[in-house]
Amino acid sequence: MSAATEQNRAQAAPGVPDRLPETMRASVLLAENTVEVQERPVPEAGPGEVLVRVGSVGVCGSDVHYYRHMRAGEFVVESPMVLGHEMGGTVVAVGSGVDASRVGERVAVDPQRPCHHCSQCLAGRYNLCPHMRFYATPPVDGSFAEYVTAPAEFAFPVADGLSDDAAALLEPLSVGIAAMRKARVVPGQRVLIAGAGPIGIITAQVARAFGAREVIITDLVAPRRERALGFGATSAVDPRETDVTALQVDSFIDASGAPPAITSGIRSVRGGGTAVLVGLGNPELTLPVSYIQDNEISLTGIFRYTDTWPLAAHLVASGQVDVDSLVTGRYDLDHAADALDSDKDPESLKSVVEPWR
Amino acid sequence: MSAATEQNRAQAAPGVPDRLPETMRASVLLAENTVEVQERPVPEAGPGEVLVRVGSVGVCGSDVHYYRHMRAGEFVVESPMVLGHEMGGTVVAVGSGVDASRVGERVAVDPQRPCHHCSQCLAGRYNLCPHMRFYATPPVDGSFAEYVTAPAEFAFPVADGLSDDAAALLEPLSVGIAAMRKARVVPGQRVLIAGAGPIGIITAQVARAFGAREVIITDLVAPRRERALGFGATSAVDPRETDVTALQVDSFIDASGAPPAITSGIRSVRGGGTAVLVGLGNPELTLPVSYIQDNEISLTGIFRYTDTWPLAAHLVASGQVDVDSLVTGRYDLDHAADALDSDKDPESLKSVVEPWR
Amino acid sequence: MSAATEQNRAQAAPGVPDRLPETMRASVLLAENTVEVQERPVPEAGPGEVLVRVGSVGVCGSDVHYYRHMRAGEFVVESPMVLGHEMGGTVVAVGSGVDASRVGERVAVDPQRPCHHCSQCLAGRYNLCPHMRFYATPPVDGSFAEYVTAPAEFAFPVADGLSDDAAALLEPLSVGIAAMRKARVVPGQRVLIAGAGPIGIITAQVARAFGAREVIITDLVAPRRERALGFGATSAVDPRETDVTALQVDSFIDASGAPPAITSGIRSVRGGGTAVLVGLGNPELTLPVSYIQDNEISLTGIFRYTDTWPLAAHLVASGQVDVDSLVTGRYDLDHAADALDSDKDPESLKSVVEPWR
Amino acid sequence: MSAATEQNRAQAAPGVPDRLPETMRASVLLAENTVEVQERPVPEAGPGEVLVRVGSVGVCGSDVHYYRHMRAGEFVVESPMVLGHEMGGTVVAVGSGVDASRVGERVAVDPQRPCHHCSQCLAGRYNLCPHMRFYATPPVDGSFAEYVTAPAEFAFPVADGLSDDAAALLEPLSVGIAAMRKARVVPGQRVLIAGAGPIGIITAQVARAFGAREVIITDLVAPRRERALGFGATSAVDPRETDVTALQVDSFIDASGAPPAITSGIRSVRGGGTAVLVGLGNPELTLPVSYIQDNEISLTGIFRYTDTWPLAAHLVASGQVDVDSLVTGRYDLDHAADALDSDKDPESLKSVVEPWR
Repeated sequence: MSAATEQNRAQAAPGVPDRLPETMRASVLLAENTVEVQERPVPEAGPGEVLVRVGSVGVCGSDVHYYRHMRAGEFVVESPMVLGHEMGGTVVAVGSGVDASRVGERVAVDPQRPCHHCSQCLAGRYNLCPHMRFYATPPVDGSFAEYVTAPAEFAFPVADGLSDDAAALLEPLSVGIAAMRKARVVPGQRVLIAGAGPIGIITAQVARAFGAREVIITDLVAPRRERALGFGATSAVDPRETDVTALQVDSFIDASGAPPAITSGIRSVRGGGTAVLVGLGNPELTLPVSYIQDNEISLTGIFRYTDTWPLAAHLVASGQVDVDSLVTGRYDLDHAADALDSDKDPESLKSVVEPWR
Repeated sequence: MSAATEQNRAQAAPGVPDRLPETMRASVLLAENTVEVQERPVPEAGPGEVLVRVGSVGVCGSDVHYYRHMRAGEFVVESPMVLGHEMGGTVVAVGSGVDASRVGERVAVDPQRPCHHCSQCLAGRYNLCPHMRFYATPPVDGSFAEYVTAPAEFAFPVADGLSDDAAALLEPLSVGIAAMRKARVVPGQRVLIAGAGPIGIITAQVARAFGAREVIITDLVAPRRERALGFGATSAVDPRETDVTALQVDSFIDASGAPPAITSGIRSVRGGGTAVLVGLGNPELTLPVSYIQDNEISLTGIFRYTDTWPLAAHLVASGQVDVDSLVTGRYDLDHAADALDSDKDPESLKSVVEPWR
Repeated sequence: MSAATEQNRAQAAPGVPDRLPETMRASVLLAENTVEVQERPVPEAGPGEVLVRVGSVGVCGSDVHYYRHMRAGEFVVESPMVLGHEMGGTVVAVGSGVDASRVGERVAVDPQRPCHHCSQCLAGRYNLCPHMRFYATPPVDGSFAEYVTAPAEFAFPVADGLSDDAAALLEPLSVGIAAMRKARVVPGQRVLIAGAGPIGIITAQVARAFGAREVIITDLVAPRRERALGFGATSAVDPRETDVTALQVDSFIDASGAPPAITSGIRSVRGGGTAVLVGLGNPELTLPVSYIQDNEISLTGIFRYTDTWPLAAHLVASGQVDVDSLVTGRYDLDHAADALDSDKDPESLKSVVEPWR
Repeated sequence: MSAATEQNRAQAAPGVPDRLPETMRASVLLAENTVEVQERPVPEAGPGEVLVRVGSVGVCGSDVHYYRHMRAGEFVVESPMVLGHEMGGTVVAVGSGVDASRVGERVAVDPQRPCHHCSQCLAGRYNLCPHMRFYATPPVDGSFAEYVTAPAEFAFPVADGLSDDAAALLEPLSVGIAAMRKARVVPGQRVLIAGAGPIGIITAQVARAFGAREVIITDLVAPRRERALGFGATSAVDPRETDVTALQVDSFIDASGAPPAITSGIRSVRGGGTAVLVGLGNPELTLPVSYIQDNEISLTGIFRYTDTWPLAAHLVASGQVDVDSLVTGRYDLDHAADALDSDKDPESLKSVVEPWR
């Protein structure tokens, strides 16, 4: 029996097709630097799941890494895999146990599928679940496709005014939220952020939404510093000209992965403050341990996120965070390779793949 | 007018001299590897202070460092200074505003004298006070002397059964308590400690008192591992033979300062766990940053302590922590140099100077 | 097909029957004060579940309440129901997805079956899951039966030396642990507990295991006070003779449900301390609100527990908490009514039903 | 020697008189409903203090209570006392140990003078210091006077754009900040506030600044509800018409002191949420204890504040909180009685006394 008949769909929901097709188009990673659009069966929403017609998918650094190297960290792509894990779209069918009224609902998807039963899950740290299934992490397919399934409780409704692109970008926004929470930023504090890339400027905006009084961003590139001032930063400095260690901020967030930025950033934190390493770089780094000890700095990193989508959706809907303006390129499925290569253009900030474009 | 007459003393308290002398003996650091006993005026207890007849003073690594190099970290000994900051004794006089009934009280002294008015002090983090005056940290004299003054609220009463040595060693015990608190150790957890020196085995005992179910200690030296089993450790392993990264403990405490121990120790922590660096070593170290990020390890260090003396006194009085057995050498003031050199003997664990010995 | 053939069982595990029977005996609550032993099918371990041969079941106040009134709070018994939710036993079969090597394992069962998907579950507060299914809470059957099924991850292995009775009593012990955590008790603190019943004296022991320096228990009945001294309390006082409000403890735990005890207990807490209401009494009580405000007391209660079984099992196995000595009556299934009525005997402390007795 | 000559003043600071007078005018509470302007010596800034020329003083409910009853709670006015503790002004002289460059600085004063040495102070809870000296709390004089002294570290600089009235009202704003912190409000949460008086609408604004997504305020009086909508509330409801217990908010703040509002407010909190009682009312209240227990609500109150002035000043300077608009009446010292009686006018919201008016 086909997906079209098996899934529970409300026929008349606006924007929902009367009949689901049997197959769909998906961009599949086959080898290094090689993606191909293939026709695949439309997946079925299992129990507790929804089927989402994908509106927009953000291109993340991890997608690019898999595309170029067929691996990322310990994960190796051993069979064809669909990339993409930052996604927004519309519910077009629901599996058993899910309220059929959700058909037609516009959603943003938290791409985590934890086991719900291990000790990390039970402790509320499902982001650290060792049994996690994550979109576009081998062997789990991602969302460079016309449809994907998602757990009903991880497909979060978004406001009508929120674009599909914005819905997709709630994922990097979730990273910024997770960083702020880890940094324990509260109103009135001063925050230093290293790196004015997408995560840096999203985090700067989140810092303001968390009440930070000052958000100082560092970047080596002047236009990136300038841009950051329009995205939450109260000041943007060239770390070669300003001694950030004199800032004595409450929290430092690294969104650069650059060793000198990390070292000086940690040294910029006041006694008892926090440092959160978000940027990815070398697996090992030389850190100023005595400074950490003598000032009781709390240093940590973030790995994914928990319970961020509702807040992310609110921050965008309320205008506190602008993610739409980050999008510098939109691509259809046939041009997914271009989207994945768009980071070669220094003007590019964030690319999205829109499967129905 | 002399100290003897100015200070408010209860004449008949047991163990308190009828009259305080005008002068006292103190061991003074004059130059590298050079201490000399000098006759100095007995200090006077100022407002809010007590005068303590020093019963015992522990020799700390920082004392040894000043003794050998006339400096430690950023602090330089520029004029003759009395060493020693781990101290227990008996109140023999009180300054204005202090209850005279405290004369005769046996006390252990928290050697911190914070400013009480800066933002760190007001926030309860007085250990990080930038205006801290600390015994035996230039230019403040320490307690290798017959008498010292101390703030009344930082001279904590101890039980009759507690020896003066034990009272002095509440200071390193406070380090272990501060480490446990920073590590957020709670009952049932598993703790890894690197280094079976005095701090390591004190911390092992404190970990048990905090309810740790397993306390695994690592050390390269077999006799030190054996000894640790008698001081709280539930197991003691040779890190060259056991892969500690497989332990997946809740918390790791470094009391070794050794880079390989720190790296493997951090990698031994389960997702969401803590690593606290207590041991002093290189100001910069190469750390496994990806592991910290991917597992959201909270890494920090400790710098002194807050509010530890009452608990430390209780842990010793109740028999939960044994510090007396750590003492492997007792010296009088004339042999302070021998006490400071005792770390050259591998059998030595903790030396104390007893000014009235 | 019968339970005997469908379930995945290791044939030779010690203490496990070669063949499971088709039916079992269970004590079923039919009406007020009426229980009857019935023959019922042995349940089958579903996916992710284990089948437990019940060794011992503690009788809880809620069981007694259902027995006498066919209701407790908002829950009403509308059809025959098996009572009992404090249980220990032996795994005799496993469902799909569960390691067959668990057959033969002695276990204690956390009686909570949360949904794992709601916001409370995802936040780690699964005890507050609004979709909770709980043993012996209508319409879910309990464990006054020869066999019960349980989620594999909530059937916790216990040490060989732990009796089935003790395994069952890890449930009330979990209440004590949850109370200590809510009260944020840390080593060195002073704790006041009102009520020297089973929960009070279990909590007193847990308080000691959490490092409490003083555990003061109050009760109106002298023999109960005396008994408490053997179960963790460092002192036991008659609240009519001692003004507990002068104690200024760090934490107050009510295990009495008695309004005067609650009022005076709250007033006994020092500024910034905690009060945790565990005892059940009137749905509304008059509380000293100005005292709570002026001293910033944190007042809360506990509702079930999260992640307590491993610690509970450790506390009993290590001898820190003695629950076996609480058992004052053992009953077989045919005498479940006697077990449920045993609270009428003032000497009775805790009764257990042993289905295979 | 006179105050004018003893105090360390920068002669040319703008707005600072060349010479301080010997005496000043102060409004002194003599008896119930009786205040009188008296000529008193200008106080001298002691060591670590500043002398502040008072620009504006807010009238607080406690001032009114002393004025009408010569007592408040346990505090009794036994000799003539100056009222007023919400104050802003300009530093006109400094005592020893204070940087003379502060002369001319506009400041807002935290009216707490804790002992800095007790266990509460050392723990960072100086608001709970049992030795607190607080302006306008017997026997300490307040600030209905031309000049007052204050500890240098508790006289916080404010931005030029901040009015003296606003500087004074950082005190009630601090109450709102303390309430938000106690309630642990974080971005995205939903908050219910009972009572649309000055504290309620200040707290509503602070809730927004803390990132609350929804701020629902209740009040029985329609115009007060309407006004609240202009001061941070996202909705304002009549509790007789809306069942607030259905709201299931993250936090409830009572700023009404009204028993029905407190009961329904607590019942409006979701499982694991917080309730903070700010409003003063009866010393004892009947509370829904079962609801607190079954939902693990954390209930507490606030008593003064710690470390709120810098954030308060920032919130006003950045336009996130408007306190100026709260001022409905301005009085000179000669009309302090009118200021104290202004609460009899239902249109009155907040009165200030401006000694130099």
